[in-house]
Amino acid sequence: MNFIQKLEWAQKKNNSLLCVGLDPSLERLPELCRRQVQPFLTFNQALIDATADLVCAYKPQIAHYAACGAEAELLATISYIHKNYPDIPVILDAKRGDVGSTAEKYAIEAFGRYQADAVTVNPYLGGDALEPFLKYEKKGVVILCRTSNPGGGELQGLEVDGEPFYLRVAELAATSWNKNHNILLVVGATWPVELARVREVVGEIPLLVPGVGAQGGDLAEVLRAGLDSRRAGLVINSSRGIIYAGSGEGFAEAARQAALELRDAINYHR
Amino acid sequence: MNFIQKLEWAQKKNNSLLCVGLDPSLERLPELCRRQVQPFLTFNQALIDATADLVCAYKPQIAHYAACGAEAELLATISYIHKNYPDIPVILDAKRGDVGSTAEKYAIEAFGRYQADAVTVNPYLGGDALEPFLKYEKKGVVILCRTSNPGGGELQGLEVDGEPFYLRVAELAATSWNKNHNILLVVGATWPVELARVREVVGEIPLLVPGVGAQGGDLAEVLRAGLDSRRAGLVINSSRGIIYAGSGEGFAEAARQAALELRDAINYHR
Repeated sequence: MNFIQKLEWAQKKNNSLLCVGLDPSLERLPELCRRQVQPFLTFNQALIDATADLVCAYKPQIAHYAACGAEAELLATISYIHKNYPDIPVILDAKRGDVGSTAEKYAIEAFGRYQADAVTVNPYLGGDALEPFLKYEKKGVVILCRTSNPGGGELQGLEVDGEPFYLRVAELAATSWNKNHNILLVVGATWPVELARVREVVGEIPLLVPGVGAQGGDLAEVLRAGLDSRRAGLVINSSRGIIYAGSGEGFAEAARQAALELRDAINYHR
Repeated sequence: MNFIQKLEWAQKKNNSLLCVGLDPSLERLPELCRRQVQPFLTFNQALIDATADLVCAYKPQIAHYAACGAEAELLATISYIHKNYPDIPVILDAKRGDVGSTAEKYAIEAFGRYQADAVTVNPYLGGDALEPFLKYEKKGVVILCRTSNPGGGELQGLEVDGEPFYLRVAELAATSWNKNHNILLVVGATWPVELARVREVVGEIPLLVPGVGAQGGDLAEVLRAGLDSRRAGLVINSSRGIIYAGSGEGFAEAARQAALELRDAINYHR
Protein backbone atom coordinates (compact mmCIF):
# COMPACT_ATOMS: atom_id res chain seq x y z
CA MET A 1 0.00 0.00 0.00
CA ASN A 2 1.48 3.37 -0.93
CA PHE A 3 0.88 6.69 0.81
CA ILE A 4 -2.07 7.80 -1.31
CA GLN A 5 -3.84 4.46 -0.81
CA LYS A 6 -3.19 4.65 2.93
CA LEU A 7 -4.58 8.18 2.98
CA GLU A 8 -7.70 7.21 1.02
CA TRP A 9 -8.29 4.26 3.31
CA ALA A 10 -8.12 6.50 6.39
CA GLN A 11 -10.47 9.00 4.69
CA LYS A 12 -13.02 6.25 4.12
CA LYS A 13 -12.64 4.54 7.46
CA ASN A 14 -13.10 7.76 9.44
CA ASN A 15 -15.36 9.42 6.87
CA SER A 16 -13.03 12.39 7.13
CA LEU A 17 -10.95 14.76 5.02
CA LEU A 18 -9.60 16.41 8.17
CA CYS A 19 -5.88 16.51 9.00
CA VAL A 20 -4.77 17.76 12.39
CA GLY A 21 -1.53 19.74 12.57
CA LEU A 22 0.53 18.83 15.62
CA ASP A 23 2.37 22.13 16.06
CA PRO A 24 2.91 22.63 19.77
CA SER A 25 4.41 25.80 21.24
CA LEU A 26 5.55 25.59 24.83
CA GLU A 27 3.99 28.92 25.78
CA ARG A 28 0.54 27.81 24.60
CA LEU A 29 0.50 24.35 26.19
CA PRO A 30 -1.87 23.58 29.06
CA GLU A 31 -0.16 23.86 32.43
CA LEU A 32 -0.52 20.12 33.10
CA CYS A 33 1.46 19.33 29.93
CA ARG A 34 4.11 21.96 30.57
CA ARG A 35 4.96 20.32 33.87
CA GLN A 36 5.88 17.01 32.18
CA VAL A 37 9.40 15.90 31.23
CA GLN A 38 8.25 15.62 27.60
CA PRO A 39 5.57 18.30 27.36
CA PHE A 40 5.06 18.10 23.57
CA LEU A 41 4.73 14.32 23.63
CA THR A 42 2.25 14.39 26.50
CA PHE A 43 0.20 17.03 24.70
CA ASN A 44 0.32 15.22 21.35
CA GLN A 45 -0.57 11.81 22.77
CA ALA A 46 -3.66 13.21 24.44
CA LEU A 47 -4.69 15.00 21.22
CA ILE A 48 -4.09 11.88 19.12
CA ASP A 49 -6.05 9.63 21.46
CA ALA A 50 -8.91 12.14 21.40
CA THR A 51 -9.08 12.55 17.61
CA ALA A 52 -7.75 9.38 15.91
CA ASP A 53 -11.21 8.24 14.81
CA LEU A 54 -11.98 11.64 13.29
CA VAL A 55 -9.00 12.38 11.04
CA CYS A 56 -7.44 11.13 7.81
CA ALA A 57 -3.89 12.22 8.72
CA TYR A 58 -1.69 13.98 11.27
CA LYS A 59 0.75 16.65 10.22
CA PRO A 60 3.47 17.59 12.72
CA GLN A 61 5.33 20.75 11.64
CA ILE A 62 9.01 20.11 12.36
CA ALA A 63 10.05 23.72 13.08
CA HIS A 64 8.03 23.67 16.29
CA TYR A 65 10.20 20.83 17.55
CA ALA A 66 13.48 21.99 16.02
CA ALA A 67 13.23 25.46 17.56
CA CYS A 68 13.63 23.98 21.02
CA GLY A 69 15.57 20.79 20.40
CA ALA A 70 12.57 18.49 20.82
CA GLU A 71 13.48 16.03 18.05
CA ALA A 72 13.03 13.09 20.43
CA GLU A 73 9.45 14.16 21.15
CA LEU A 74 8.68 14.46 17.45
CA LEU A 75 10.08 10.99 16.87
CA ALA A 76 8.10 9.57 19.79
CA THR A 77 4.92 11.27 18.56
CA ILE A 78 5.20 9.68 15.12
CA SER A 79 6.03 6.27 16.66
CA TYR A 80 3.01 6.61 18.90
CA ILE A 81 0.71 7.14 15.92
CA HIS A 82 2.21 4.24 13.95
CA LYS A 83 1.94 1.90 16.92
CA ASN A 84 -1.52 2.80 18.18
CA TYR A 85 -3.28 4.04 15.06
CA PRO A 86 -1.48 2.32 12.18
CA ASP A 87 -4.18 3.27 9.67
CA ILE A 88 -3.58 6.99 10.09
CA PRO A 89 -0.74 8.36 7.92
CA VAL A 90 1.72 10.97 9.17
CA ILE A 91 2.76 13.88 6.97
CA LEU A 92 5.97 15.49 8.20
CA ASP A 93 5.64 19.17 7.39
CA ALA A 94 9.23 20.20 6.76
CA LYS A 95 9.19 22.04 3.39
CA ARG A 96 12.61 20.66 2.54
CA GLY A 97 14.48 21.27 -0.67
CA ASP A 98 18.11 21.13 -1.74
CA VAL A 99 20.36 19.89 -4.55
CA GLY A 100 20.49 16.14 -5.15
CA SER A 101 23.19 14.87 -2.80
CA THR A 102 21.84 16.92 0.10
CA ALA A 103 18.21 16.19 -0.73
CA GLU A 104 19.11 12.51 -0.22
CA LYS A 105 19.95 13.38 3.39
CA TYR A 106 16.69 15.26 3.88
CA ALA A 107 14.79 12.26 2.51
CA ILE A 108 16.58 10.04 5.01
CA GLU A 109 15.65 12.51 7.76
CA ALA A 110 11.94 12.33 6.87
CA PHE A 111 11.47 8.73 5.80
CA GLY A 112 14.32 6.95 7.61
CA ARG A 113 14.82 8.76 10.88
CA TYR A 114 11.26 9.97 11.51
CA GLN A 115 9.45 7.21 9.58
CA ALA A 116 7.00 9.72 8.15
CA ASP A 117 4.55 8.48 5.52
CA ALA A 118 4.90 11.71 3.56
CA VAL A 119 6.91 14.94 3.65
CA THR A 120 6.26 18.45 2.37
CA VAL A 121 8.87 19.86 -0.03
CA ASN A 122 9.63 23.10 -1.86
CA PRO A 123 9.76 22.98 -5.68
CA TYR A 124 12.02 26.01 -6.30
CA LEU A 125 15.09 23.90 -7.15
CA GLY A 126 13.28 21.94 -9.86
CA GLY A 127 12.40 18.32 -10.53
CA ASP A 128 15.89 16.82 -10.22
CA ALA A 129 16.10 18.10 -6.65
CA LEU A 130 12.78 16.40 -5.85
CA GLU A 131 13.92 13.05 -7.26
CA PRO A 132 15.61 11.89 -4.02
CA PHE A 133 12.21 12.19 -2.30
CA LEU A 134 10.08 10.91 -5.20
CA LYS A 135 12.09 7.73 -5.57
CA TYR A 136 10.60 6.45 -2.31
CA GLU A 137 7.60 5.01 -4.16
CA LYS A 138 5.55 4.13 -1.11
CA LYS A 139 5.98 7.55 0.48
CA GLY A 140 4.05 10.70 -0.32
CA VAL A 141 5.77 13.87 -1.54
CA VAL A 142 3.69 16.95 -0.91
CA ILE A 143 4.92 19.82 -3.07
CA LEU A 144 4.23 23.49 -2.29
CA CYS A 145 2.16 25.02 -5.07
CA ARG A 146 0.14 28.04 -3.91
CA THR A 147 0.81 28.80 -0.27
CA SER A 148 -1.69 30.23 2.19
CA ASN A 149 0.28 33.29 3.36
CA PRO A 150 -0.82 36.81 2.34
CA GLY A 151 2.25 37.29 0.13
CA GLY A 152 2.06 33.80 -1.40
CA GLY A 153 1.34 35.30 -4.79
CA GLU A 154 4.35 37.60 -4.89
CA LEU A 155 6.39 34.99 -6.77
CA GLN A 156 3.86 32.16 -7.21
CA GLY A 157 1.46 34.47 -9.04
CA LEU A 158 3.94 35.88 -11.58
CA GLU A 159 2.88 35.25 -15.17
CA VAL A 160 4.75 32.71 -17.27
CA ASP A 161 3.45 32.34 -20.84
CA GLY A 162 0.11 33.81 -19.82
CA GLU A 163 -0.46 31.64 -16.78
CA PRO A 164 0.63 31.98 -13.18
CA PHE A 165 3.87 30.34 -12.05
CA TYR A 166 2.11 28.10 -9.51
CA LEU A 167 0.11 26.49 -12.33
CA ARG A 168 3.35 25.59 -14.07
CA VAL A 169 4.40 23.87 -10.85
CA ALA A 170 1.05 22.06 -10.79
CA GLU A 171 1.45 20.92 -14.42
CA LEU A 172 4.95 19.56 -13.85
CA ALA A 173 3.80 17.85 -10.66
CA ALA A 174 0.92 16.20 -12.51
CA THR A 175 3.07 15.00 -15.42
CA SER A 176 6.86 14.66 -15.69
CA TRP A 177 7.60 14.73 -11.96
CA ASN A 178 4.93 12.18 -11.03
CA LYS A 179 6.38 8.96 -12.44
CA ASN A 180 5.72 7.11 -9.19
CA HIS A 181 2.23 8.56 -8.65
CA ASN A 182 3.18 9.67 -5.18
CA ILE A 183 2.84 13.45 -5.48
CA LEU A 184 0.37 15.69 -3.63
CA LEU A 185 0.23 19.48 -3.79
CA VAL A 186 -0.22 22.22 -1.20
CA VAL A 187 -2.76 24.93 -2.01
CA GLY A 188 -3.85 27.32 0.73
CA ALA A 189 -7.51 27.51 1.73
CA THR A 190 -7.16 31.29 1.55
CA TRP A 191 -7.06 31.12 -2.29
CA PRO A 192 -10.19 29.29 -3.54
CA VAL A 193 -9.94 30.66 -7.09
CA GLU A 194 -6.39 29.38 -7.38
CA LEU A 195 -7.44 26.09 -5.79
CA ALA A 196 -10.02 25.57 -8.53
CA ARG A 197 -7.44 26.29 -11.25
CA VAL A 198 -5.02 23.80 -9.71
CA ARG A 199 -7.74 21.15 -9.48
CA GLU A 200 -8.52 21.64 -13.14
CA VAL A 201 -4.89 21.05 -14.09
CA VAL A 202 -3.99 18.10 -11.84
CA GLY A 203 -6.98 15.74 -12.20
CA GLU A 204 -7.21 13.51 -9.16
CA ILE A 205 -3.93 14.38 -7.44
CA PRO A 206 -4.72 14.95 -3.75
CA LEU A 207 -4.41 18.49 -2.45
CA LEU A 208 -3.28 19.36 1.05
CA VAL A 209 -5.13 22.51 2.06
CA PRO A 210 -3.90 24.45 5.08
CA GLY A 211 -5.32 27.76 6.16
CA VAL A 212 -8.86 27.04 7.33
CA GLY A 213 -9.44 28.26 10.87
CA ALA A 214 -6.80 30.65 12.24
CA GLN A 215 -5.75 31.79 8.74
CA GLY A 216 -9.32 32.47 7.64
CA GLY A 217 -10.04 30.20 4.65
CA ASP A 218 -13.74 29.59 3.88
CA LEU A 219 -14.76 25.93 4.04
CA ALA A 220 -17.67 25.93 1.58
CA GLU A 221 -15.53 27.67 -1.05
CA VAL A 222 -12.61 25.33 -0.44
CA LEU A 223 -14.77 22.26 -1.03
CA ARG A 224 -16.51 23.68 -4.07
CA ALA A 225 -13.15 24.57 -5.60
CA GLY A 226 -11.01 21.66 -4.49
CA LEU A 227 -12.94 18.37 -4.56
CA ASP A 228 -12.04 15.99 -7.36
CA SER A 229 -14.50 14.13 -9.59
CA ARG A 230 -15.06 11.52 -6.84
CA ARG A 231 -15.88 14.29 -4.35
CA ALA A 232 -12.62 13.44 -2.58
CA GLY A 233 -8.93 14.29 -3.06
CA LEU A 234 -8.63 16.90 -0.32
CA VAL A 235 -6.71 16.84 2.95
CA ILE A 236 -7.90 19.84 4.92
CA ASN A 237 -5.53 20.81 7.69
CA SER A 238 -6.28 22.65 10.88
CA SER A 239 -3.66 23.13 13.57
CA ARG A 240 -4.29 25.90 16.08
CA GLY A 241 -8.09 25.80 15.74
CA ILE A 242 -8.07 22.25 17.06
CA ILE A 243 -5.05 21.75 19.28
CA TYR A 244 -5.70 24.94 21.23
CA ALA A 245 -9.51 24.63 21.28
CA GLY A 246 -9.25 24.29 25.07
CA SER A 247 -6.53 25.38 27.42
CA GLY A 248 -7.20 23.75 30.78
CA GLU A 249 -7.57 20.17 31.95
CA GLY A 250 -10.21 19.44 29.33
CA PHE A 251 -7.99 20.43 26.40
CA ALA A 252 -8.14 17.00 24.73
CA GLU A 253 -11.93 16.81 24.95
CA ALA A 254 -12.16 20.36 23.57
CA ALA A 255 -9.86 19.35 20.72
CA ARG A 256 -12.07 16.34 19.99
CA GLN A 257 -15.14 18.55 19.90
CA ALA A 258 -13.44 21.02 17.53
CA ALA A 259 -12.22 18.19 15.29
CA LEU A 260 -15.67 16.60 15.23
CA GLU A 261 -17.32 19.87 14.28
CA LEU A 262 -14.80 20.60 11.55
CA ARG A 263 -14.95 17.07 10.14
CA ASP A 264 -18.73 17.26 10.03
CA ALA A 265 -18.73 20.76 8.56
CA ILE A 266 -16.41 19.52 5.80
CA ASN A 267 -18.71 16.57 5.12
CA TYR A 268 -21.74 18.87 5.11
CA HIS A 269 -20.22 20.92 2.25
CA ARG A 270 -18.82 17.87 0.49
CA MET B 1 28.72 44.56 13.72
CA ASN B 2 26.19 42.85 11.46
CA PHE B 3 26.71 39.65 9.47
CA ILE B 4 27.93 41.29 6.27
CA GLN B 5 30.47 43.39 8.18
CA LYS B 6 31.65 40.30 10.05
CA LEU B 7 31.99 38.44 6.76
CA GLU B 8 33.94 41.27 5.13
CA TRP B 9 36.25 41.49 8.12
CA ALA B 10 37.02 37.75 7.91
CA GLN B 11 37.58 38.10 4.16
CA LYS B 12 40.15 40.84 4.75
CA LYS B 13 41.83 39.26 7.73
CA ASN B 14 42.39 35.92 6.00
CA ASN B 15 42.66 37.41 2.50
CA SER B 16 40.06 34.84 1.49
CA LEU B 17 36.72 34.46 -0.28
CA LEU B 18 36.67 30.74 0.56
CA CYS B 19 33.91 29.17 2.62
CA VAL B 20 34.26 25.56 3.76
CA GLY B 21 31.13 23.42 3.87
CA LEU B 22 31.04 21.18 6.92
CA ASP B 23 28.87 18.38 5.50
CA PRO B 24 30.06 15.14 7.08
CA SER B 25 28.70 11.73 6.05
CA LEU B 26 29.50 8.86 8.39
CA GLU B 27 30.45 6.50 5.57
CA ARG B 28 33.07 8.93 4.24
CA LEU B 29 34.71 9.84 7.55
CA PRO B 30 38.28 8.74 8.33
CA GLU B 31 38.34 5.61 10.45
CA LEU B 32 39.89 7.46 13.40
CA CYS B 33 36.90 9.85 13.50
CA ARG B 34 34.31 7.12 13.06
CA ARG B 35 35.55 5.43 16.21
CA GLN B 36 34.80 8.49 18.36
CA VAL B 37 31.65 9.03 20.42
CA GLN B 38 30.99 12.23 18.45
CA PRO B 39 32.46 11.41 15.04
CA PHE B 40 31.16 14.52 13.22
CA LEU B 41 32.38 16.84 15.96
CA THR B 42 35.83 15.24 16.05
CA PHE B 43 36.06 15.51 12.25
CA ASN B 44 34.82 19.10 12.15
CA GLN B 45 37.07 20.33 14.95
CA ALA B 46 40.15 18.97 13.19
CA LEU B 47 39.06 20.56 9.90
CA ILE B 48 38.31 23.89 11.57
CA ASP B 49 41.64 23.98 13.41
CA ALA B 50 43.40 23.21 10.13
CA THR B 51 41.66 25.86 8.02
CA ALA B 52 40.49 28.72 10.25
CA ASP B 53 43.19 31.11 8.98
CA LEU B 54 42.29 30.38 5.36
CA VAL B 55 38.52 30.90 5.18
CA CYS B 56 35.97 33.70 5.40
CA ALA B 57 33.14 31.49 6.68
CA TYR B 58 32.06 27.96 7.55
CA LYS B 59 28.82 26.53 6.21
CA PRO B 60 27.48 23.41 7.93
CA GLN B 61 24.62 21.83 5.93
CA ILE B 62 22.00 20.79 8.48
CA ALA B 63 20.57 17.77 6.57
CA HIS B 64 23.82 15.88 7.12
CA TYR B 65 23.27 16.15 10.87
CA ALA B 66 19.49 15.78 10.86
CA ALA B 67 19.58 12.57 8.80
CA CYS B 68 21.25 10.77 11.68
CA GLY B 69 20.10 12.69 14.75
CA ALA B 70 23.39 14.52 15.26
CA GLU B 71 21.92 17.87 16.27
CA ALA B 72 24.15 17.98 19.36
CA GLU B 73 27.26 17.67 17.19
CA LEU B 74 26.08 20.48 14.91
CA LEU B 75 25.47 22.68 17.92
CA ALA B 76 28.88 21.82 19.39
CA THR B 77 30.57 22.49 16.03
CA ILE B 78 29.10 25.97 15.80
CA SER B 79 29.95 26.70 19.45
CA TYR B 80 33.50 25.55 18.80
CA ILE B 81 33.88 28.03 15.95
CA HIS B 82 32.40 30.92 17.95
CA LYS B 83 34.62 30.18 20.94
CA ASN B 84 37.92 29.52 19.20
CA TYR B 85 37.62 31.56 16.01
CA PRO B 86 35.15 34.31 16.86
CA ASP B 87 36.03 36.29 13.72
CA ILE B 88 34.79 33.56 11.38
CA PRO B 89 31.03 33.67 10.70
CA VAL B 90 28.91 30.54 10.48
CA ILE B 91 26.26 30.17 7.75
CA LEU B 92 23.74 27.49 8.63
CA ASP B 93 22.73 25.93 5.32
CA ALA B 94 19.13 24.89 5.98
CA LYS B 95 17.13 26.31 3.03
CA ARG B 96 14.18 26.97 5.29
CA GLY B 97 10.92 28.56 4.26
CA ASP B 98 7.37 28.56 5.59
CA VAL B 99 4.46 30.87 6.31
CA GLY B 100 4.96 33.58 8.93
CA SER B 101 4.13 31.94 12.23
CA THR B 102 6.14 28.83 11.37
CA ALA B 103 8.99 30.78 9.82
CA GLU B 104 9.36 32.41 13.25
CA LYS B 105 10.15 28.97 14.65
CA TYR B 106 12.68 28.25 11.90
CA ALA B 107 14.37 31.57 12.64
CA ILE B 108 14.59 30.60 16.30
CA GLU B 109 16.07 27.25 15.26
CA ALA B 110 18.83 28.93 13.23
CA PHE B 111 19.60 32.06 15.24
CA GLY B 112 18.50 31.07 18.74
CA ARG B 113 19.18 27.38 19.13
CA TYR B 114 22.20 27.05 16.81
CA GLN B 115 23.48 30.62 17.15
CA ALA B 116 24.26 30.78 13.45
CA ASP B 117 25.38 34.12 12.02
CA ALA B 118 23.38 33.55 8.85
CA VAL B 119 20.93 31.02 7.42
CA THR B 120 20.01 30.00 3.87
CA VAL B 121 16.33 30.32 2.96
CA ASN B 122 14.02 29.51 0.03
CA PRO B 123 12.13 32.45 -1.56
CA TYR B 124 9.18 30.50 -3.06
CA LEU B 125 6.69 31.67 -0.39
CA GLY B 126 7.42 35.37 -1.02
CA GLY B 127 8.74 38.28 1.00
CA ASP B 128 6.29 38.10 3.92
CA ALA B 129 7.50 34.59 4.68
CA LEU B 130 11.11 35.83 4.76
CA GLU B 131 10.29 38.66 7.17
CA PRO B 132 10.68 36.51 10.34
CA PHE B 133 14.31 35.88 9.29
CA LEU B 134 15.04 39.36 7.92
CA LYS B 135 13.95 41.09 11.09
CA TYR B 136 17.07 39.77 12.83
CA GLU B 137 19.08 42.79 11.67
CA LYS B 138 22.47 41.53 12.74
CA LYS B 139 22.03 38.14 11.10
CA GLY B 140 22.51 37.30 7.44
CA VAL B 141 19.70 35.87 5.31
CA VAL B 142 21.01 34.02 2.29
CA ILE B 143 18.24 33.60 -0.29
CA LEU B 144 18.29 30.93 -3.02
CA CYS B 145 18.35 32.61 -6.42
CA ARG B 146 19.87 30.37 -9.14
CA THR B 147 20.84 27.01 -7.70
CA SER B 148 23.79 24.89 -8.86
CA ASN B 149 21.92 21.65 -9.70
CA PRO B 150 21.51 20.55 -13.34
CA GLY B 151 17.75 21.16 -13.24
CA GLY B 152 18.05 24.49 -11.41
CA GLY B 153 16.67 26.31 -14.42
CA GLU B 154 13.49 24.25 -14.78
CA LEU B 155 11.53 26.75 -12.70
CA GLN B 156 14.16 29.42 -11.97
CA GLY B 157 14.75 29.98 -15.68
CA LEU B 158 11.11 30.43 -16.71
CA GLU B 159 10.49 33.79 -18.38
CA VAL B 160 8.51 36.46 -16.55
CA ASP B 161 8.03 39.69 -18.51
CA GLY B 162 10.95 38.85 -20.74
CA GLU B 163 13.42 38.03 -18.00
CA PRO B 164 14.10 34.85 -16.06
CA PHE B 165 12.32 34.18 -12.80
CA TYR B 166 15.55 34.07 -10.77
CA LEU B 167 16.29 37.66 -11.81
CA ARG B 168 12.94 38.73 -10.37
CA VAL B 169 14.01 37.11 -7.12
CA ALA B 170 17.32 38.98 -7.32
CA GLU B 171 15.54 42.32 -7.93
CA LEU B 172 13.18 41.86 -5.00
CA ALA B 173 16.08 40.78 -2.79
CA ALA B 174 18.03 43.88 -3.75
CA THR B 175 15.14 46.28 -3.15
CA SER B 176 11.88 45.76 -1.23
CA TRP B 177 13.01 42.73 0.78
CA ASN B 178 16.33 44.24 1.85
CA LYS B 179 15.23 46.91 4.32
CA ASN B 180 17.78 45.76 6.90
CA HIS B 181 20.64 45.32 4.40
CA ASN B 182 21.20 41.79 5.59
CA ILE B 183 20.42 39.79 2.43
CA LEU B 184 22.83 37.64 0.43
CA LEU B 185 21.95 35.49 -2.57
CA VAL B 186 22.89 31.97 -3.65
CA VAL B 187 23.99 31.56 -7.27
CA GLY B 188 25.62 28.29 -8.34
CA ALA B 189 29.15 28.32 -9.76
CA THR B 190 27.84 26.08 -12.53
CA TRP B 191 25.97 29.03 -14.10
CA PRO B 192 28.50 31.87 -14.77
CA VAL B 193 26.27 33.66 -17.31
CA GLU B 194 23.42 33.76 -14.80
CA LEU B 195 25.88 34.83 -12.10
CA ALA B 196 26.88 37.85 -14.18
CA ARG B 197 23.24 38.82 -14.72
CA VAL B 198 22.52 38.59 -11.00
CA ARG B 199 25.59 40.70 -10.18
CA GLU B 200 24.40 43.36 -12.60
CA VAL B 201 21.02 43.55 -10.86
CA VAL B 202 22.05 43.43 -7.20
CA GLY B 203 24.98 45.86 -7.01
CA GLU B 204 27.15 45.00 -4.04
CA ILE B 205 24.99 42.38 -2.37
CA PRO B 206 27.27 39.44 -1.47
CA LEU B 207 26.74 36.22 -3.41
CA LEU B 208 27.24 32.77 -1.93
CA VAL B 209 28.52 30.53 -4.71
CA PRO B 210 28.43 26.77 -4.20
CA GLY B 211 29.34 24.29 -6.91
CA VAL B 212 33.08 24.73 -7.50
CA GLY B 213 34.96 21.46 -7.08
CA ALA B 214 32.77 18.32 -7.02
CA GLN B 215 29.96 19.99 -8.97
CA GLY B 216 32.31 21.29 -11.67
CA GLY B 217 32.03 25.09 -11.66
CA ASP B 218 34.94 26.96 -13.30
CA LEU B 219 36.78 29.31 -10.97
CA ALA B 220 38.07 31.87 -13.46
CA GLU B 221 34.59 32.30 -14.95
CA VAL B 222 32.97 32.54 -11.53
CA LEU B 223 35.27 35.37 -10.50
CA ARG B 224 34.95 37.24 -13.78
CA ALA B 225 31.16 37.01 -13.56
CA GLY B 226 30.59 37.43 -9.85
CA LEU B 227 33.01 39.96 -8.32
CA ASP B 228 31.52 43.29 -7.38
CA SER B 229 32.98 46.73 -8.16
CA ARG B 230 35.38 46.40 -5.22
CA ARG B 231 36.58 43.04 -6.54
CA ALA B 232 34.87 41.41 -3.56
CA GLY B 233 31.32 40.35 -2.68
CA LEU B 234 31.73 36.62 -3.23
CA VAL B 235 31.65 33.72 -0.78
CA ILE B 236 32.86 30.68 -2.71
CA ASN B 237 31.94 27.43 -1.05
CA SER B 238 33.63 24.09 -1.35
CA SER B 239 32.57 21.12 0.76
CA ARG B 240 33.60 17.67 -0.48
CA GLY B 241 36.69 18.93 -2.36
CA ILE B 242 38.15 20.11 0.92
CA ILE B 243 36.78 18.00 3.74
CA TYR B 244 37.48 14.73 1.91
CA ALA B 245 40.79 15.83 0.36
CA GLY B 246 42.45 13.11 2.45
CA SER B 247 41.00 10.02 4.02
CA GLY B 248 43.57 8.64 6.44
CA GLU B 249 45.29 10.04 9.53
CA GLY B 250 46.48 13.10 7.63
CA PHE B 251 42.95 14.18 6.60
CA ALA B 252 43.13 17.55 8.35
CA GLU B 253 46.49 18.42 6.80
CA ALA B 254 45.18 17.35 3.38
CA ALA B 255 42.11 19.56 3.91
CA ARG B 256 44.38 22.48 4.82
CA GLN B 257 46.40 21.96 1.68
CA ALA B 258 43.24 21.82 -0.48
CA ALA B 259 41.85 24.93 1.20
CA LEU B 260 45.13 26.80 0.75
CA GLU B 261 45.26 25.93 -2.93
CA LEU B 262 41.67 26.91 -3.54
CA ARG B 263 41.97 30.16 -1.59
CA ASP B 264 45.09 31.08 -3.57
CA ALA B 265 43.52 30.04 -6.89
CA ILE B 266 40.56 32.30 -6.10
CA ASN B 267 42.91 35.17 -5.27
CA TYR B 268 44.90 34.56 -8.46
CA HIS B 269 41.78 35.07 -10.57
CA ARG B 270 40.50 37.90 -8.41
